[in-house]
Amino acid sequence: MADAVATEPKEAKVPATTDAPTYMNAERLRAFVQQLFMTLNVPEQDAYITADVLVQGDQRGVDSHGVARLFQYIKRLQEGLIEANPTITIKRETPVSVALDGGNGLGQVVSHRAMEMIIDKAAKIGIGMATVNHSNHFGIAGYYAMMALPHGMVGQAYTNTTPLVMPTFGKKIMTGTNPIAVAVPCGSEKPWVLDMATSVVPRGKLEVAARKGLEMPQGWAVDKEGVPTTDPQAALDGGAPMPLGGTRELGGHKGYDLAIFVDILSGVLSGAGFGPNLAGFWGTHAASNIGHFFMAFRPDLFMDLSEFESRMDEFVRELKATPPTRGAARVLVAGQPEDDAVARYRRTGVPLHPKVMQSLTQLSDELGVPLPPSAQTPMG
Amino acid sequence: MADAVATEPKEAKVPATTDAPTYMNAERLRAFVQQLFMTLNVPEQDAYITADVLVQGDQRGVDSHGVARLFQYIKRLQEGLIEANPTITIKRETPVSVALDGGNGLGQVVSHRAMEMIIDKAAKIGIGMATVNHSNHFGIAGYYAMMALPHGMVGQAYTNTTPLVMPTFGKKIMTGTNPIAVAVPCGSEKPWVLDMATSVVPRGKLEVAARKGLEMPQGWAVDKEGVPTTDPQAALDGGAPMPLGGTRELGGHKGYDLAIFVDILSGVLSGAGFGPNLAGFWGTHAASNIGHFFMAFRPDLFMDLSEFESRMDEFVRELKATPPTRGAARVLVAGQPEDDAVARYRRTGVPLHPKVMQSLTQLSDELGVPLPPSAQTPMG
Repeated sequence: MADAVATEPKEAKVPATTDAPTYMNAERLRAFVQQLFMTLNVPEQDAYITADVLVQGDQRGVDSHGVARLFQYIKRLQEGLIEANPTITIKRETPVSVALDGGNGLGQVVSHRAMEMIIDKAAKIGIGMATVNHSNHFGIAGYYAMMALPHGMVGQAYTNTTPLVMPTFGKKIMTGTNPIAVAVPCGSEKPWVLDMATSVVPRGKLEVAARKGLEMPQGWAVDKEGVPTTDPQAALDGGAPMPLGGTRELGGHKGYDLAIFVDILSGVLSGAGFGPNLAGFWGTHAASNIGHFFMAFRPDLFMDLSEFESRMDEFVRELKATPPTRGAARVLVAGQPEDDAVARYRRTGVPLHPKVMQSLTQLSDELGVPLPPSAQTPMG
Repeated sequence: MADAVATEPKEAKVPATTDAPTYMNAERLRAFVQQLFMTLNVPEQDAYITADVLVQGDQRGVDSHGVARLFQYIKRLQEGLIEANPTITIKRETPVSVALDGGNGLGQVVSHRAMEMIIDKAAKIGIGMATVNHSNHFGIAGYYAMMALPHGMVGQAYTNTTPLVMPTFGKKIMTGTNPIAVAVPCGSEKPWVLDMATSVVPRGKLEVAARKGLEMPQGWAVDKEGVPTTDPQAALDGGAPMPLGGTRELGGHKGYDLAIFVDILSGVLSGAGFGPNLAGFWGTHAASNIGHFFMAFRPDLFMDLSEFESRMDEFVRELKATPPTRGAARVLVAGQPEDDAVARYRRTGVPLHPKVMQSLTQLSDELGVPLPPSAQTPMG
């Protein structure tokens, strides 16, 4: 997830390779994805939400969590591993909280519902918290945190994920890449939006390195014995990405503990699976019982919203004005690379990798939903 | 802070060097520290709280935040940079929240008050949040998070600190080592207690390396130009510890963003100083206007406390049972090294470095409070 946070976004190029992307208008892509879900009996509004979360992944440059993952959602719906029209249950509710059971529906749908409910609670009493269990992969965590922004609230979203990470000092996969997302409203500056996995890198980066036959940097991953390795294949064969920080010497135990904290909120507290016992989403043939945790609160519990927002503006401007180190163009703030991607892809269309286009074409054929027009060069 | 989390605690030894510690009973040490504060007109109960927080730092093995820092608190009280008997003001209050002004008193006092207030709120309504501004260094963050535990609640504590860290891609110090502390109750297992700085290492580790003439590991720090260095002196001369993760390639932007998140909650939202404009505590001759953020909530908003605690037990036991990698004795959970230190020092007394003993002796003489008995070997 949020691997894009605070990194320089790559400019859209038209490379003369087979990896050259195809560009598609985001709204048309979203309508297409919505139609696909509807053919599988997902209700119209639920299909819209799910499509919106996935396409926003692509729009924000987090393409690992965009429509690239669509076929896996579709497959799980077809196999009955995700309920198309689940019964979402309120297990407990108070003026400040709600515990939801997602009924094994799409993670996006129950997560959107959870955020709506706690934004409503926070509007009345100042704070709202929600847990969700019996859910599935929910796309980009930042989407839900950002739902708080139009209400002048701070939003937070957490989820556990398919187990992929080994604890510091361990040689067994015990937890996920468990992301943390936080969205904070600003005044004239764009909102500050953090969306980060608690591992150094996602597993996808190991796969890319293996495919390209590259050595990985020291500190990305361990092999199946829990020993740091620069060989991506050794990491993929039973090894794991390291927790944020890497080795113990560089603070990897902190990343491990952050991942566990996310799992405590999302898994333990929600009644979902947690740790190594979470079935997970990718590559398993079982209901996933993923869990999430959400929070929203009003800054005006503590100071006027306008004062808070202007203080945020000041902080964001100061951070952006930090003199850059040798070789760096500028200092970024959380959410800036994603904002840049949104602006760029609004002009050019969303870039889709040939493999992704291939899967969309296949889904279009199989489910009888016409593929929107696309272009081989950036639009606009 | 929490640099001890998930690392193997060092066994108490009696090395034949000038660094050999002196051992002192923790309760006697606390009473001594309390008396010192009382001679400077800190009220008896406030002096007790402050002494308790500092000595718990030593008891938990986080000696960088224990009585080693005492002389700096005392000096600031003597110089009028900290108010001995401050007026703590409630700026805003709702059933779920309180915004406090610490009146430039001891950070420990207003932080303890804030946690008491929100624990009371959480007992009634489920959640409580507090901000504090016009405060000072508050010792170990974990202390306040742990105050929630006897109430069967999850506690969280955050603070900004003296600016010490450069953003990813930057070459100017813009934020602190801003710690995050979380305490989660378990059933038969000990509570899960995370207390971590959001930098790779504290500045103190750079100082130790410089003193010993050692090279630092790649990834600990940058020089004044923001360029990674293994020379501790180059890091100390205008450089900085790196944010958790280290370089951009290893996810350092995530540690930078976590530090900013802590500063948003503690500094921006509270009305305290934030970012590079925080005067800070160490080495400055000005009121520090440090800010804190606290939260407590009841797990039984979401499931019965007994069920939550037994699920936590299960998770903690699973993590501890993770097979260790080559050369590691065991996999730890957050809080375990500190618990081990508490148990060990209960027997042996708290170890105090010769320099710390020297400063305690000096304070004893200056303020006329007799130094408690101590021993050159572990007690008990």
